[in-house]
Amino acid sequence: MQIAIVGLGRMGGNMVKRLLGGGHQVVAYDRDPAAVERVVKEGAVGASSLADVVAKLSAPRAVWVMVPSGKATQDTIDELAKTMSANDVVIDGGNSNFHDSIRHSEELAEKKIRFLDAGTSGGVWGLEVGYCLMIGGDKSAYDHILPALTTLAPKDGLGYFGKAGAGHFCKMVHNGIEYAMMQAYAEGFELMKATDYDYDLKKVTSVWNHGSVVRSWLLELAERAFNKDPELAGLKAYVDDSGEGRWTVDEAVARAVPVPTIAASLFARFTSRQDNSFAMRVLAALRNEFGGHAVKKA
Amino acid sequence: MQIAIVGLGRMGGNMVKRLLGGGHQVVAYDRDPAAVERVVKEGAVGASSLADVVAKLSAPRAVWVMVPSGKATQDTIDELAKTMSANDVVIDGGNSNFHDSIRHSEELAEKKIRFLDAGTSGGVWGLEVGYCLMIGGDKSAYDHILPALTTLAPKDGLGYFGKAGAGHFCKMVHNGIEYAMMQAYAEGFELMKATDYDYDLKKVTSVWNHGSVVRSWLLELAERAFNKDPELAGLKAYVDDSGEGRWTVDEAVARAVPVPTIAASLFARFTSRQDNSFAMRVLAALRNEFGGHAVKKA
Repeated sequence: MQIAIVGLGRMGGNMVKRLLGGGHQVVAYDRDPAAVERVVKEGAVGASSLADVVAKLSAPRAVWVMVPSGKATQDTIDELAKTMSANDVVIDGGNSNFHDSIRHSEELAEKKIRFLDAGTSGGVWGLEVGYCLMIGGDKSAYDHILPALTTLAPKDGLGYFGKAGAGHFCKMVHNGIEYAMMQAYAEGFELMKATDYDYDLKKVTSVWNHGSVVRSWLLELAERAFNKDPELAGLKAYVDDSGEGRWTVDEAVARAVPVPTIAASLFARFTSRQDNSFAMRVLAALRNEFGGHAVKKA
Repeated sequence: MQIAIVGLGRMGGNMVKRLLGGGHQVVAYDRDPAAVERVVKEGAVGASSLADVVAKLSAPRAVWVMVPSGKATQDTIDELAKTMSANDVVIDGGNSNFHDSIRHSEELAEKKIRFLDAGTSGGVWGLEVGYCLMIGGDKSAYDHILPALTTLAPKDGLGYFGKAGAGHFCKMVHNGIEYAMMQAYAEGFELMKATDYDYDLKKVTSVWNHGSVVRSWLLELAERAFNKDPELAGLKAYVDDSGEGRWTVDEAVARAVPVPTIAASLFARFTSRQDNSFAMRVLAALRNEFGGHAVKKA
């Protein structure tokens, strides 16, 4: 089928390649003309603006937006809405908050443009194994772009989950779970390093990946990391977050659902970014005040 | 090679079958004669007592103990030590605390009997895919029983990690990680159930298992469970523990290693067993005392 990809970064660029490999006609656009040139060499039809994207597609048009969540996605969808027509399809494949996706669905509905929110997992590995796709929104639009979806996703790695927002909510929870799984492994490895057993974590992860209950794709990535740098000496113990863990905790709070491990894993990342935290200075001060306990001076 | 298995429960019985399938000669013993009879039908040599196990083996003997941790394992090893000889090998394949394994190693060393602690993962699936084996203890004993170990384990699912206790400590941490991973998934699924999206968790787990970052063997088991009973209506929300999560937290506390998700997942299980908890009645009482907040009466 014919589909456009807007945003040719790490994810969008590889999705163009996967779609071209599947025999689809891809119209590609990025604010950076060099990114467009790269995929044109692979066989994509380059576009010079969002209006040009729309002009180069036949109705009903399908435009997959793969740009950073928030303002970039909002601006792109607003701009597309100006030139797209009734029955066209906008797919937000980025990591948008599901509240945004519900709003986008409503805004586009005013022009009868159909909307899909597509939670996309697979990272840089997606080109090779396919992108796990969690979709919400207009079911007729889902059916319309199904040929492209089945090319992008691995076999059985594609699901339609309901009305607008269902895809991005599903992806948000997926990422919240991912935070806690990563933290679980990290805690276990730190505990093993705190013994005098001198564990070879390359070997531990390799053994666990073969027949153990904790085998997983994340553990395979851990094995790769330990093989490259067994002590992770090249890294600083500082961990960023991209927002989906926060949203998961926000939504859990809004619904009064206890998520102790997901919240703890998010807070562990915040702690990793602290240097001489005020909270720990408060504790030190209080121990000194009530018990005369020794404290470390700044 | 020739090896004895003591304890023919869910794990030990299947290990006998896997060893027989690998062409080994297996002497089998259980307190329950019916369990012995079952594996004798499969080709094992039955034994009527621990002394009979030792009598039926050629030196250097190898006896794999697969009985519940604690008293049953201690009693079995004590009894074996009476009749086994220098250079023989005792393997504890159960879920023993690594402190016990260090002590067993020292006790058996007095008679020059070699000891191995074998952390064993794979559960009821081990017969089919093999048992992931994490081994500590006497390296010469490990080399001696390597033919049996390579039959029991899947390819690459076998590791020697160092002196006595290294195997069971590794298995303990493995189980601690498992607790937090399970809890992470559980929290995510509960949050999805708390929306009005009406997620089909059979479909969600199936999609996530194909190309997503959180794909894992535990998630495959979740998919199986949701396929059998989508609402898990047949289960009570009560979760036991077998001790290894507690030990993981104990050892983290002893070493001052922060394990927030592992601890939270253990405490979540404790909470699941409470009915009208005293702590929550304390909170309700305090809210009523300071703010006159409404409380639910017993």
